[in-house]
Amino acid sequence: MNSSSKLMQDAVDQMATLPGIGKKTAFRLVLSLLKRENNEVEQFTQAIAELKKNIKYCTECHHLSDDEICSICSGSRRDAETICVVEEINDVIAIETTQQYNGLYHVLGGIISPMDGIGPQDLKINSLIERTKRLLPKEIIFALRATMEGDTTSFYIFKKLADTGIKTSLLARGVSIGGELEYADEITLGRSIVNRTPFERTILSQ
Amino acid sequence: MNSSSKLMQDAVDQMATLPGIGKKTAFRLVLSLLKRENNEVEQFTQAIAELKKNIKYCTECHHLSDDEICSICSGSRRDAETICVVEEINDVIAIETTQQYNGLYHVLGGIISPMDGIGPQDLKINSLIERTKRLLPKEIIFALRATMEGDTTSFYIFKKLADTGIKTSLLARGVSIGGELEYADEITLGRSIVNRTPFERTILSQ
Repeated sequence: MNSSSKLMQDAVDQMATLPGIGKKTAFRLVLSLLKRENNEVEQFTQAIAELKKNIKYCTECHHLSDDEICSICSGSRRDAETICVVEEINDVIAIETTQQYNGLYHVLGGIISPMDGIGPQDLKINSLIERTKRLLPKEIIFALRATMEGDTTSFYIFKKLADTGIKTSLLARGVSIGGELEYADEITLGRSIVNRTPFERTILSQ
Repeated sequence: MNSSSKLMQDAVDQMATLPGIGKKTAFRLVLSLLKRENNEVEQFTQAIAELKKNIKYCTECHHLSDDEICSICSGSRRDAETICVVEEINDVIAIETTQQYNGLYHVLGGIISPMDGIGPQDLKINSLIERTKRLLPKEIIFALRATMEGDTTSFYIFKKLADTGIKTSLLARGVSIGGELEYADEITLGRSIVNRTPFERTILSQ
C-alpha cells in the first residue's frame, strides 16, 4: 500500500503494529487522525506517551496505578479479607465492570506455561504468597482462565498456601472453558464470582 | 470501564475516538502499547505526531505529499494526459494498488451532498477546472462512488468541462452500487479502470 508519502507510510506501519489492526484498517485510522485539528492529534499522542512515561504498577497487587499503591488496594471501602488472583490487568477491569466483587486483587502477570517457557518464578507468585501471609485474608479466589495452564497455576498456588488454612475458591465454571476472561459477558462473569466453589472440590474432582 | 488509573483512562478514551474502535478494543490496544519498550511507544506516537506536523498536500492534485508536489504529479513515468478524479486520498491508494492506472489524480476532498451542506465550492472542483484548462489532458476519468451524490458530482464537473471537448469517462459499473471505493476488491477495481465507459452514455442513459 503505497501512499506516496513516507510520513504517511511510517504512521500507517506503526498503527498496523497494534493487535488485530491490518494495513487497510491502519490506513483508515491514520487518515481519521489526519483529518482532525492539530491539538486533537496532540491530545491523542500525548495521552499515550504520558501513560507509558508515568504509569506505575501497584507495589501490592501489581495492577496499573498512578501512585505507589493503587486505588483498589488503598480504598477504604474495599473488603481487604478477600484477594482475587488474576492473570492480567484487563481481568481486573473485566471483574470490576461486573460490580459483583469488592475485595482486593493480585495480578500475576501471566500463568504457568511450560510450552512458552513461563515458570512460577516469572510470575508474581512469591509476592502473592508473601502478601497472603502478611495480610492473612479470609479467602483467596482463583480467577484464572479455565484451561489446563490456568488450573495448574491455581493448583501450584493452592499447594503453596495449603499450610495457612486460608479458604481458597475458584470462579464458578460458568465461564466458558478455554476462553479468556475479557471476552466473557458481564452477566456470566458476575455470576461466576457469586457462585464460586471450594478449590479442592472443583479441581481435584475433575 | 474503570482502570483505577487516570493515565490509562485518558489513553483509552483517546484510542476510542478512532472510528470503529470501542472502549473494550481501545483498552486492548493501549494495553498492548503499554507492554512494549519505551522507545517502541515513542516511535508509535512520534510517527503520528510527525505526520500531522509535517504532512503537506500536493498543490496540484491535493493528494498527500512530503513536498509541494507529490511523487505522482512529479513522476516522469506517469501519463500526464489522463486525470482520474477521486473523492478522498484513500481512493488514490486503492486505485494505485490495482496497478492498472498510470495517469494523474485529482482529489476533490468529498462529493456534492446537499443533505450534508456540501456544495461545489467546498470541494477542489475549481482547482480541477483550472488544472484541466492548463494541462489540457486527453481524458478525465470520474472515479467517484456509484451513488446519486457521486453521479451528481461527476455530472456537475462534466458540464463545467463540456466546452473543452476533453473526453470524459466513468469507472465501469463493476464496482458495487452504493459502496465506497476503498472496500472494493483489487480485481474488481482494476477491471473497472480498464473497462471505463464514455461519460454521457453511462450517466445519461440510466
